Amino acid sequence: MLGEIRMRTDRSASRGQRSGLRLGIGDDCALLAPRQGEEVAVTTDLSIAGRHFRLDWHQPEAVGHRALARGLSDLAAMGARPLAAFLSLGLPPSLTVATGRGRSWVRRFLDSLLGLAEEYKTPLAGGDLAESPVAMADIVLVGAVPHGRALLRSGARPGDLLYVTGALGGAAAGLARLAELASTARQQPPRIPKKLEALLAPHLYPQPRIAQGLWLQRRGLASAALDLSDGLSTDLAHLCEESGVAAEIDAARLPIALGATLDQALHGGEDYELLFTAALAARLPRAIAGVKITRIGRIVKRRSVQPAMTLLTEQGPQPLEVKGWEHFR
Amino acid sequence: MLGEIRMRTDRSASRGQRSGLRLGIGDDCALLAPRQGEEVAVTTDLSIAGRHFRLDWHQPEAVGHRALARGLSDLAAMGARPLAAFLSLGLPPSLTVATGRGRSWVRRFLDSLLGLAEEYKTPLAGGDLAESPVAMADIVLVGAVPHGRALLRSGARPGDLLYVTGALGGAAAGLARLAELASTARQQPPRIPKKLEALLAPHLYPQPRIAQGLWLQRRGLASAALDLSDGLSTDLAHLCEESGVAAEIDAARLPIALGATLDQALHGGEDYELLFTAALAARLPRAIAGVKITRIGRIVKRRSVQPAMTLLTEQGPQPLEVKGWEHFR
Repeated sequence: MLGEIRMRTDRSASRGQRSGLRLGIGDDCALLAPRQGEEVAVTTDLSIAGRHFRLDWHQPEAVGHRALARGLSDLAAMGARPLAAFLSLGLPPSLTVATGRGRSWVRRFLDSLLGLAEEYKTPLAGGDLAESPVAMADIVLVGAVPHGRALLRSGARPGDLLYVTGALGGAAAGLARLAELASTARQQPPRIPKKLEALLAPHLYPQPRIAQGLWLQRRGLASAALDLSDGLSTDLAHLCEESGVAAEIDAARLPIALGATLDQALHGGEDYELLFTAALAARLPRAIAGVKITRIGRIVKRRSVQPAMTLLTEQGPQPLEVKGWEHFR
Repeated sequence: MLGEIRMRTDRSASRGQRSGLRLGIGDDCALLAPRQGEEVAVTTDLSIAGRHFRLDWHQPEAVGHRALARGLSDLAAMGARPLAAFLSLGLPPSLTVATGRGRSWVRRFLDSLLGLAEEYKTPLAGGDLAESPVAMADIVLVGAVPHGRALLRSGARPGDLLYVTGALGGAAAGLARLAELASTARQQPPRIPKKLEALLAPHLYPQPRIAQGLWLQRRGLASAALDLSDGLSTDLAHLCEESGVAAEIDAARLPIALGATLDQALHGGEDYELLFTAALAARLPRAIAGVKITRIGRIVKRRSVQPAMTLLTEQGPQPLEVKGWEHFR
């Protein structure tokens, strides 16, 4: 299987050379060459069947896409450009053999993952494949960002405004529809009817905001940033905690995704949009690289007697509680 | 659990700063700062229960040590200095709770892994912990090596001599003894009797050859190198393949480990010694940083009618076959 991965990697070797990959699969380590003055950003994301995806709900294409998208999204949140990805796969033998109807589960998983990798100019530079009683994929992304320019969670200051890319709650709404489909479908995982594709796309095929993160980093406009993996309420709490500030959200301003509820926009996980702050005086465009930018609130001083996060609604302010995102439990 | 890991990481933060870790656990990515002119080496190693270790054979300390040692050994084989490690852990809930007799399995696993990390000045800079029906650990090591100076598998030339660090077959011999112990012990995993500790150490607590790899890289003496993870016959075949050469091994010269057989020295995996080549004229010392260096053979031209690897014995030359290393199957 690594032989197959290697073939695909070699084919994009010239692109790899440009992106900073000097040596890929085949030696004890891969070698990456960041440019002078760049720091290296590293993130790992573990996906386990039954926990981060379900073999009876998700087609292998969605599992492969989502595994890589999670990692790319972490690079986007730092304003880093991808250098390379690494994949450790543990699979039951049944997922590695071709079925009567065509390609094996792992072949479909890899084709999808490698397709997304190519789209984001991220060569797959190494990995491991082992037999495992449960399907799991650990993805590692390595990126580069000019020294001292990475977008951190800790830079938000009172007076800054809060922004998000894209729309919120779409992944949670899509997941809810997928669960419905799976419960009544004849085959598992269910086929997605054409008319539901757009509704399920934010969950099945989230788009990492690499271009938007790079844009913000290069212009030095964002004072803090992170990606929305656990849901707005949870991730905003992280930002407030790391920056030592509090935040107010305007409910009426939230860009709620098609088919999603306010609750899903506030607490649903896995949207993989960027949440960032910028100074009041900063001029943000309406869209960055084709993705809408929405101002959703502001950073305020942290006072110990008040909640760290407030939701401003027509009925007045109310505390915004952290509601954890529990995947498939 | 990541909170605990973070605590341990923060404690060694000043060391981390020196080693090149700018930002550890707590943001979307860790940030590493290689020195000017350095390339970045990355390796991933997946360990799965039942495949790379056995919960009924191995104490958690050995599992943690071996997981990190595998990754460090890959850096050693490139002549890279460690910058940081990342750990993705999937564990059944039972392994995360303290037992009546003391610390939890995962606490003991981590203490051992972090102890080895400290010894090799390798801060744990990130990771993931998720519930999994089977115990698994994916370890990522990131290192740095001056541009163009990494020890590759592809540089061996006819006329070069072949060397190994340390002794061979010790891990396979230790594993065989451990299997015996486990089959008769009252408790699982078995306690290791004091008198067997030295014999089992090469299997349970292999020492990555970081200092030796750095020494070779800095002096530019090795034309090719890799680490012995799959066994001499398998790994030498990789070196011959990548360099386009053939090799002869002198059976009488092999540094066979205490308690090991010739067969274990030739084919046993997981010794994590370095196998390297150097020009005939190169002067190698008897030991590097306290570890013995032994000349075991030579690189010759590849001829299609002859086997790529030959074992020279008192009875004359014989083909050296690749015998795969099958872990715990």
